[in-house]
Amino acid sequence: MKVLAILYDGGEAAVQESRLLGTVENKLGLKEWLESQGHEFIGRSRIMLFKDQCSSTLYKEGPNSDFQKHIVDAEVLITTPFHPGYLTRDLIAKAKNLKICITAGVGSDHIDLNAAVDRRIQVLEVSGSNVVSVAEHVVMSILLLVRNFVPAHEMIERGDWQVSDIARNAFDLEGKVVGTIGAGRIGYRVLQRLVPFDCKELIYYDYAPLPEAAAKAVNARRVEDLKDFVSQCDVVTVNCPLHEGTRGLVNAELLKHFKKGAWLVNTARGAICDKDAVAAALADGTLSGYSGDVWNVQPAPKDHIWRTMKNPLGGGNGMVPHYSGTTLDAQIRYANGVKSILDNYFKGKEQEAQNIIIGLGRYETKAYGQR
Amino acid sequence: MKVLAILYDGGEAAVQESRLLGTVENKLGLKEWLESQGHEFIGRSRIMLFKDQCSSTLYKEGPNSDFQKHIVDAEVLITTPFHPGYLTRDLIAKAKNLKICITAGVGSDHIDLNAAVDRRIQVLEVSGSNVVSVAEHVVMSILLLVRNFVPAHEMIERGDWQVSDIARNAFDLEGKVVGTIGAGRIGYRVLQRLVPFDCKELIYYDYAPLPEAAAKAVNARRVEDLKDFVSQCDVVTVNCPLHEGTRGLVNAELLKHFKKGAWLVNTARGAICDKDAVAAALADGTLSGYSGDVWNVQPAPKDHIWRTMKNPLGGGNGMVPHYSGTTLDAQIRYANGVKSILDNYFKGKEQEAQNIIIGLGRYETKAYGQR
Repeated sequence: MKVLAILYDGGEAAVQESRLLGTVENKLGLKEWLESQGHEFIGRSRIMLFKDQCSSTLYKEGPNSDFQKHIVDAEVLITTPFHPGYLTRDLIAKAKNLKICITAGVGSDHIDLNAAVDRRIQVLEVSGSNVVSVAEHVVMSILLLVRNFVPAHEMIERGDWQVSDIARNAFDLEGKVVGTIGAGRIGYRVLQRLVPFDCKELIYYDYAPLPEAAAKAVNARRVEDLKDFVSQCDVVTVNCPLHEGTRGLVNAELLKHFKKGAWLVNTARGAICDKDAVAAALADGTLSGYSGDVWNVQPAPKDHIWRTMKNPLGGGNGMVPHYSGTTLDAQIRYANGVKSILDNYFKGKEQEAQNIIIGLGRYETKAYGQR
Repeated sequence: MKVLAILYDGGEAAVQESRLLGTVENKLGLKEWLESQGHEFIGRSRIMLFKDQCSSTLYKEGPNSDFQKHIVDAEVLITTPFHPGYLTRDLIAKAKNLKICITAGVGSDHIDLNAAVDRRIQVLEVSGSNVVSVAEHVVMSILLLVRNFVPAHEMIERGDWQVSDIARNAFDLEGKVVGTIGAGRIGYRVLQRLVPFDCKELIYYDYAPLPEAAAKAVNARRVEDLKDFVSQCDVVTVNCPLHEGTRGLVNAELLKHFKKGAWLVNTARGAICDKDAVAAALADGTLSGYSGDVWNVQPAPKDHIWRTMKNPLGGGNGMVPHYSGTTLDAQIRYANGVKSILDNYFKGKEQEAQNIIIGLGRYETKAYGQR
């Protein structure tokens, strides 16, 4: 059986750090295991090309890439959300042998899921493998925006000391209203971690209410209308999957309903927030800060405006590359999870229900917009 | 009555942002109130001079500073911990009229407390005014060190994208052992905020055990021996006052007992950690990171090694100027607190017990090393 894994180049780092399992070099720790069972394992890297223009269209691999070459006869495709191998409908048409796609991590929007349904290709994720990692990153990002960390650290690095220039835009999280768009596996963990911060209120927006006990445990109130929801938040955090119903959800129109000077954290998917609308809102002070690790195209082009955008006081940018869900702790969990999914697949055993995005010919989750 | 306030220059920021109450420009909002009662109010800034050599000795104001000129006949001295006006025994000897020192914030180690006892000068703080602010900063700092935020953000700013270079030193807080040196008003709030992060264990080192219910509420275990304590921690956070018993507490000898690659966060006072020992430990990987907002002398000299020190992978520095306790939210609280202490003083009313560091001729707290 041919297993194709599109991972990311770890380079020297991966040679020195064997716990960097999600890299081409360390191959999720799967190579020997697969080959010992007689399978063919092709581990390739996502080609890193920077496009001149950033766009919200899917980033396509070139026709001569290893991905395009090997997808033709691979039965199993493994990808990551970090340097995603984008599996478009066109590529799926070429992938005559493909039966199962496994995302090493959480978030399979880089795969054309409707096309996978049509072709009866299963799509699985390692659900839960990095939800805590991402939730921690969200709480960190909220704190560093509200508390104005980045300009403070930059001030120290450049040899200055002017407390008032930092303090004038530094606040406590205590007493603020924090709301999550999406209160699923990650969003709920964010709420849990915020409970002891004595926020004024925790609220959420989701297509369904939380179970009563779960809502009570974090004392979170649901707001059903999105505009109404954002208008109540000092901090908005995005924790929903990307699908056609959430693409561009936070756009210029919605930003008009935000509280003046709110902070926005998005570690879900870049394309949920409109790139230019966010940059404009930060520049004019509609937002005091924007932070996250996800971009509408990854790797982000060198000139992507989110790399350098700032608020009127020169701060408010907490962007990082997409790594919140790929800490070394998370890599162990999703490498083990991929192995377990593969093992079930080889043996014809049932998959864990929570990992199945697309079963044979149908969505098994509502998380990607299927109601 | 002459009231002297040594605050910090807010400059243009304070003109534009009236909530920057702790600045010379905005005078804790006290000027009109004091003058309306017939008091003389002198609000001056701490002179900002960078010393060529950083040292652990107290930074002294020049003899011609406004501080030295007005301290001679002031009855009330107001200072802040952020740009502290250092009140040495020499200065106290000159301050013939001084009856009460009020710290707008928490932490009065910039005052020679023993000299204040000898001269029967009261010392009060606005206890609780910024403990939450600092505790939030601690949790933020722990997360950003453990998760390797700063190098990730720098990578984005400079136009790069190499996830593996970040992920190789990024971890989750979940499953780690976090310990606080000091489980008082700030340290305990740190523990409270860490509870939902599912750390492997929360531990603390303090001269007295927490009340049983308080310890149980955060599920924290006390370790009585400091070397034993640090050897168990993945993350050590310093939350104790600076006094002769804690000066240089984290030194080269103690660092030998840290877990290899531990993270250290200190928002208490810079001089609790030995400057050069910390820098050396970060450089050789004994520490993976050091973060905080306090320095052995403030403002920190331009060439202070803590500004630019790094771990062997080029990260691990989360330093900022001293502002964690002076968010705009905290400034409202400590400005109101100073007013309340002044009001009690003018009216001869009893002060709130929790605010009194030095009463008439004696320590009223054990927090500054008096057992």
